[in-house]
Amino acid sequence: MSAPIEFYFDFSSPYAYFASHGIDAVAAEFGRPCLWKPMLLGPAFKASGNQRLVDQPLKGAYALHDWLRLGRMLNLPYRHPDPFPVATTAAARVFWWLEATDSTRAKAFARAVFAAYFAEGRNISDEDVVAGLAEGQGQDRQSAVDAMRDPRWKDRCRSETEAAIARGVFGAPFFFVGGEGFWGSDRLEMLRSWLGRGGW
Amino acid sequence: MSAPIEFYFDFSSPYAYFASHGIDAVAAEFGRPCLWKPMLLGPAFKASGNQRLVDQPLKGAYALHDWLRLGRMLNLPYRHPDPFPVATTAAARVFWWLEATDSTRAKAFARAVFAAYFAEGRNISDEDVVAGLAEGQGQDRQSAVDAMRDPRWKDRCRSETEAAIARGVFGAPFFFVGGEGFWGSDRLEMLRSWLGRGGW
Repeated sequence: MSAPIEFYFDFSSPYAYFASHGIDAVAAEFGRPCLWKPMLLGPAFKASGNQRLVDQPLKGAYALHDWLRLGRMLNLPYRHPDPFPVATTAAARVFWWLEATDSTRAKAFARAVFAAYFAEGRNISDEDVVAGLAEGQGQDRQSAVDAMRDPRWKDRCRSETEAAIARGVFGAPFFFVGGEGFWGSDRLEMLRSWLGRGGW
Repeated sequence: MSAPIEFYFDFSSPYAYFASHGIDAVAAEFGRPCLWKPMLLGPAFKASGNQRLVDQPLKGAYALHDWLRLGRMLNLPYRHPDPFPVATTAAARVFWWLEATDSTRAKAFARAVFAAYFAEGRNISDEDVVAGLAEGQGQDRQSAVDAMRDPRWKDRCRSETEAAIARGVFGAPFFFVGGEGFWGSDRLEMLRSWLGRGGW
């Protein structure tokens, strides 16, 4: 068994932000590559009849509280962003543009996007903000802006979202090892158990 | 900090079944009492705009698969019951009747109900089945049947459900330590961390 770990996420998901700080260590522990796959949660919610957490009575209030305490528990910076959630198409397209040539740089950019939104309170739906984050990672600013408009990366973003839904993704984060899916940042331990025992 | 752990559940919840096999050990580890509190998920779903898992596209299929693999991972018997889910009023009323005089016997009865449904495939919405389970725990059969119809336990079941919703319960299992709530069988580790560190 040597399938990579595939990590599906939306840049606007707090649980995906928390998972982004743990998933590569799990992959390294078991000698697996870890593929980061930004997608758009909107279509996945539509396909599953799901709603944004903050729109749900009771569960929305629980989630808001849970994100703050998860930050404290994991010792990770977390400021609940406003506006929330936001459209993440620009960031996802820039990611896929970078990923086509260098997945390490793409991941570094993704980490910068997560930090900007959840630690620094910057609005990552803003194209200028996203371009600045790419620039901060050593990319040419205009090339990043071009990537946001390039139909190639728009299509890639859509096709990855569609592929995720076809595999059963209805929320984020969602991990796959081969055909086996794991939903939620609190499933990293289950994923470790699966990798350690070779499934059960 | 010496608040008990309160364990809210519906007898028809597979995740609550799995949690029922772990929660008392967590409570014992931290020297806390563990109060079992059966409730009805239907009103909690209504209050939160939630739906039964098996009715949800994508998430329902995930849950069905997840319950089977959790049984294997935790080495607990699990056969997905049919019919599913079922009304659990009779079992919950008998529980509250027993709990009024002996919480240890009430818990033993609750474990028997969970096992009957999730390991033995018996229909726990059937009053005869529930009466038989009470009898198997050394209770008088007719007294158990009377308890199912007694307005006291009907009211208790409803008031516990209302109290749970007022505290923010939208699914099962749901644990409280004082005012702090934890949702889901995969949050036992988070609960342990909370108890071990005295919150974060």
